Amino acid sequence: MIDKLIEGIRRTNAPIVVGLDPMLGYVPDYLKKQAFDEFGETLEGAAEAIWLYNRGLVDAVCDLVPAVKPQIAMYEQFGVPGLQAFHRTVEYCKKKGLVVIGDIKRGDIGSTSEAYAVGHLGRVQVGSHAFYGFDEDFVTVNPYLGSDGVRPFVKVCKEEKKGIFVLVKTSNPSSGEFQDRLIDGKPLYELVGEQVAAWGEDCVGTHGYSYVGAVTGATYPEQGRLLRRVMPKTYLLVPGYGAQGGKGADLVHFFNEDGLGAIINSSRGIIAAWKQEQYASYGEKGYADAARAAVLAMQQDIAQALDNRA
Amino acid sequence: MIDKLIEGIRRTNAPIVVGLDPMLGYVPDYLKKQAFDEFGETLEGAAEAIWLYNRGLVDAVCDLVPAVKPQIAMYEQFGVPGLQAFHRTVEYCKKKGLVVIGDIKRGDIGSTSEAYAVGHLGRVQVGSHAFYGFDEDFVTVNPYLGSDGVRPFVKVCKEEKKGIFVLVKTSNPSSGEFQDRLIDGKPLYELVGEQVAAWGEDCVGTHGYSYVGAVTGATYPEQGRLLRRVMPKTYLLVPGYGAQGGKGADLVHFFNEDGLGAIINSSRGIIAAWKQEQYASYGEKGYADAARAAVLAMQQDIAQALDNRA
Repeated sequence: MIDKLIEGIRRTNAPIVVGLDPMLGYVPDYLKKQAFDEFGETLEGAAEAIWLYNRGLVDAVCDLVPAVKPQIAMYEQFGVPGLQAFHRTVEYCKKKGLVVIGDIKRGDIGSTSEAYAVGHLGRVQVGSHAFYGFDEDFVTVNPYLGSDGVRPFVKVCKEEKKGIFVLVKTSNPSSGEFQDRLIDGKPLYELVGEQVAAWGEDCVGTHGYSYVGAVTGATYPEQGRLLRRVMPKTYLLVPGYGAQGGKGADLVHFFNEDGLGAIINSSRGIIAAWKQEQYASYGEKGYADAARAAVLAMQQDIAQALDNRA
Repeated sequence: MIDKLIEGIRRTNAPIVVGLDPMLGYVPDYLKKQAFDEFGETLEGAAEAIWLYNRGLVDAVCDLVPAVKPQIAMYEQFGVPGLQAFHRTVEYCKKKGLVVIGDIKRGDIGSTSEAYAVGHLGRVQVGSHAFYGFDEDFVTVNPYLGSDGVRPFVKVCKEEKKGIFVLVKTSNPSSGEFQDRLIDGKPLYELVGEQVAAWGEDCVGTHGYSYVGAVTGATYPEQGRLLRRVMPKTYLLVPGYGAQGGKGADLVHFFNEDGLGAIINSSRGIIAAWKQEQYASYGEKGYADAARAAVLAMQQDIAQALDNRA
């Protein structure tokens, strides 16, 4: 799957993943009305609204980017109906040829991590049959429990030819509280990064990158530069572009010399572009076209930054 | 909710939480047959089987213990139908008067943690209505992202009078890989413990304990002794008893002098007791009675250990 992701990045010339993190506040009123007319102002109605919204977004950007990253929390907040919309979104994106990175940030003791891995990447056995639960292509994983919380994911990735991105240095303001603390002179995130490289050592695909990737926030470019060196074969999933404050020029050090090695996520900045002044002329009915325009602007910003580096 | 939990512990004289972590392998054949006859060997069939199994367990132990802890991964592995069974289990346990600790180990950047908190502990707004998604009483939270990943949970707990348990020192073999690393002479788990105490400082209930609790594994009794001192007002959720290797005598230092301050989880050791030699005479139809016997044995083991301490 890491190979498919890299080929998609090359094909689109866009190392971009669109974060499908729908808040009801982003969904245009006409879509909410359509959903609530059918299901009422209920969890089912909310789930339908975010599904309709997602479908429009995916249709508008699927030829421009290689991947999407639905954030499961934004669906889980609507209970079981929300998770149905998550599943439906994953299936639709895959049908459209997109690589789906489930942003689930799971991680637990061994047997429990195995259940998460099976449910999100693999197949669960029921009697004599095996079923995919959510069937994303990649998921994000929390490293706090150490190797035996991560290895079950790697095992399922091997079997299913899928991948993970392990949290190393997250994009949020307080990420340094624990992640930056020095251990034998090195910050914790660097130790986690070294471990990610070790977990992924025998997981390298045909393009030289491992399917055990890492999450490193765009909001911390200096740490990204360091982590790039610590994990040369690790693909970096870089959130925090746009709404969280990251800019193209901050991102160049997340990439390797080959122009690969990183994929940049933007969520709000793309999916809620129609609510920004810059794209306001699209109006609510043009929300998907506004998203498309925002993707194109982001692509240009990153390409320019990488060109300026050379 | 921390007050309700403590009152339940006093009433039952059992600082015990039953981990509802159903694997299909634990479910007696006759229940699987009943479920598969109705839904086939499908995800729906598996979800029905674990629901029937849970209901029997809950009926058998609900007067003996104050709380249950369903591990959501064991449901999530069966996709959306599995999460329906999770929700049904949560609702049923609450109806039976049990405190429900959702073992979800979520944690993300601020706005995303808020969505998880809303979905699992609080209410989500849909138009002019607000709905509970999963509506557990407590959830477990991963601290790797620092304060702004945890505070949204605390905020919802305040509004809804609920609680959390933050991972501090987990019970798994590799938990030391990052958690034990020394930072300014102190292990990371101790720093996390200090932070948990700080997050929960203004969240203390009428019995003197905070509704911002901590997870500290029974398999690490020495670390438990230290953490007990670091977080005197923090309730400790202690997994790892029984199947993972923890014994009653190892647990005494997780408790305060008042006999409170800790609640011990056992999952497999109780819910799959019927598969152990010791309880084999119950047979598959007696799986729930075997669980009841295992709870009583665990209660005695812990009471004895606490008595021997005095």
